[in-house]
Amino acid sequence: MSRVVQKFGGSSLKDLPHIRRAAQIVAQRWHAGDQVLVVVSAMGDKTDQLLSLARKANKSNADESAECDSLLATGEQESAALMALCLQNLGLNARSFLGWQIPVETFGKHGRAQVRRINNLQLVNALQNREIAVCAGFQGLMAAGDRVATLGRGGSDTSAVLIAASIKAQLCEIFTDVDGVFTTDPRIVTNARKIDKINYEEMLEMASLGARVLETRAAAAAMRYKIPLHIRSTFSMEKGTEVADGEQSMEQKSVTALTYSDRDAKIALLGLDNKPGVAAKIFEHLALKNISVDMIVQGTTQDEEKAHIAFTVEKNDLQRACSAIEEIKKEAEFQELRSDDKVIKLSLIGAGMNSYAGVAARMFRILAEKGINIQIIATSEIKISVLIASDYLELALRSLHAIFDLPNKNNNEKK
Amino acid sequence: MSRVVQKFGGSSLKDLPHIRRAAQIVAQRWHAGDQVLVVVSAMGDKTDQLLSLARKANKSNADESAECDSLLATGEQESAALMALCLQNLGLNARSFLGWQIPVETFGKHGRAQVRRINNLQLVNALQNREIAVCAGFQGLMAAGDRVATLGRGGSDTSAVLIAASIKAQLCEIFTDVDGVFTTDPRIVTNARKIDKINYEEMLEMASLGARVLETRAAAAAMRYKIPLHIRSTFSMEKGTEVADGEQSMEQKSVTALTYSDRDAKIALLGLDNKPGVAAKIFEHLALKNISVDMIVQGTTQDEEKAHIAFTVEKNDLQRACSAIEEIKKEAEFQELRSDDKVIKLSLIGAGMNSYAGVAARMFRILAEKGINIQIIATSEIKISVLIASDYLELALRSLHAIFDLPNKNNNEKK
Repeated sequence: MSRVVQKFGGSSLKDLPHIRRAAQIVAQRWHAGDQVLVVVSAMGDKTDQLLSLARKANKSNADESAECDSLLATGEQESAALMALCLQNLGLNARSFLGWQIPVETFGKHGRAQVRRINNLQLVNALQNREIAVCAGFQGLMAAGDRVATLGRGGSDTSAVLIAASIKAQLCEIFTDVDGVFTTDPRIVTNARKIDKINYEEMLEMASLGARVLETRAAAAAMRYKIPLHIRSTFSMEKGTEVADGEQSMEQKSVTALTYSDRDAKIALLGLDNKPGVAAKIFEHLALKNISVDMIVQGTTQDEEKAHIAFTVEKNDLQRACSAIEEIKKEAEFQELRSDDKVIKLSLIGAGMNSYAGVAARMFRILAEKGINIQIIATSEIKISVLIASDYLELALRSLHAIFDLPNKNNNEKK
Repeated sequence: MSRVVQKFGGSSLKDLPHIRRAAQIVAQRWHAGDQVLVVVSAMGDKTDQLLSLARKANKSNADESAECDSLLATGEQESAALMALCLQNLGLNARSFLGWQIPVETFGKHGRAQVRRINNLQLVNALQNREIAVCAGFQGLMAAGDRVATLGRGGSDTSAVLIAASIKAQLCEIFTDVDGVFTTDPRIVTNARKIDKINYEEMLEMASLGARVLETRAAAAAMRYKIPLHIRSTFSMEKGTEVADGEQSMEQKSVTALTYSDRDAKIALLGLDNKPGVAAKIFEHLALKNISVDMIVQGTTQDEEKAHIAFTVEKNDLQRACSAIEEIKKEAEFQELRSDDKVIKLSLIGAGMNSYAGVAARMFRILAEKGINIQIIATSEIKISVLIASDYLELALRSLHAIFDLPNKNNNEKK
């Protein structure tokens, strides 16, 4: 007997027939003798609909208000109740648990609250009584007071992993509308391959670099609490992608996957005085305005008199970032600000990839051969990211995917 | 300065523009210096939609389950949050209060819970701070445990009146899509007249006898706690109908209104043995099955050997009632069971009406002149109800309304 968390996303619950189908998956687990806790997202694109209503109701204050959270939380309350009703209809004991009932204690800002503590008492009790606990994902209760909070977009993944940690589940299944995690976007690269196993670090990088199958925070939480994940399709019984600790199996390969993200925009400042403190001034000012900066590159003119800085911010923040920089134009003493939101961040991901010096070089050479200009480069232990013009997305993805031999299962950069 | 509860029904909140309009009505009150607490229903026919989903999800157990209540409660949670956002958008301080947050403590069955106690602490606090408290109607918290409960159909009216009692409001305004309470259904009788003032007893009878403008429980609660009501339209600034204590003004007239209800069905048992205890056996058995019986008439054949009983039950209960009676056919020893759901209950309502002996007689004579057969009669202090075939509804309403001179304001049966 295991204790299992099964999380169903919005596309797996988009109407009542879908919820019934998901309930059957749950029932199957339960009949196999496992303890099952279900975490549900809102039905279909319900959250988007509600958010759009909130923004129309109140232009200034909607997204991060307690009222918007109370509104959005109805989405998961609805699907949790319907899931419980469907499970009861199958003759099973089930009850729904809302964020405030568990409670999932949160802190921080409305609209993107963080979880402080989850009380597992009622949940474990229910499971031990062979009851199926159906938890509304995405929601919690602000620790100080009685207001409903939500965890930010994709928060149900995070709810699922943190609840799994809290009840010491042996497995957390993430049910979605794709077959698992792919080496790259199968809509663009037709021979993209489903990855059978991946470790937490790779999953985390993939999530943060644009693979949409799991939220970054959920991947980080799974890594931290060592919760084995199984990312799989609601619509087939096929195995999906297992996310777990697995360093030895990772030794053999270098590149696991190729992701992209169109969430970033580039800002370039030209003609800065080449003296210490200029970059600090700019990034401190952006931090003050709560604008996150991702990739950064700095260079100088040949005579080293003038410097230039380029960096990326989220597209949503581009306007605010440009205004913020214009405010300190005098202090920062740059000659020109250029911004570009037609860029794509392309990332190669693989555990231990940085120990194979050839990977980065080959990546750059292939892009050069196709005439694709690299605007910014950023690397870490397990990823190389490049910023390129978004026109080249498909060409770059297909070229790199083929060369790195990702479609074959036993790819090995050392050969 | 007064403390006022403003309740908005679903038709007054059917979409965001409607909610905005309602928010402006609230703002106007607030700017006039009053303390304002708002009680909202779910948007439009949201409750019906959710209930139909629940019934599809679970055929056996939906209506009276904790899960269905949790589902239905999202309707008022949604409209309360949107109302608060709209009020904030007008620059006012507002927050929503859900049933469990106040809490509105309930007991009894899910799907038709009763209110035990309302904690007014947070609400009064908010009002005293010039904040607008927006309460989700229809919902509460089961006293034993953490489950959301709902108060049954039309429960938001009841929420509004009970919250008004709890915070000692001077007035409870019921905003709806008609101009007030009418002497009879204006869709059938074109010269039906809006009633300016009505007392609690009359309002209670009207509500329970089919006037849909206010729920019976809400009318009973208003009477019990002496909460002055003002039933009025969201869509005009005209005065509606005031419901209050007002015995002296009631002396002058006898008939206030003429209502009808199509919620009842008739059951007739023919050829019963005419001996004591037979009726008791039947009604005890129905009570055991939780079936309410309303109008009852009993008679005998000319030779007094056989008796017959006729009575009404709710249409929803007709099938169950017939089966229940068939179960005890041997003990009850009747020859034939006839049922009829094509009946209408027509009621004349007026405080002190029973002191004018002529009213009932005139009612029966008018119906007889039109060839309308009276199947059952029931009377009380302030009403005379008759059961007739539903085909005659319009004819009966128009004839009675005209004769009783209801369209004129100073009607007086004594003249």
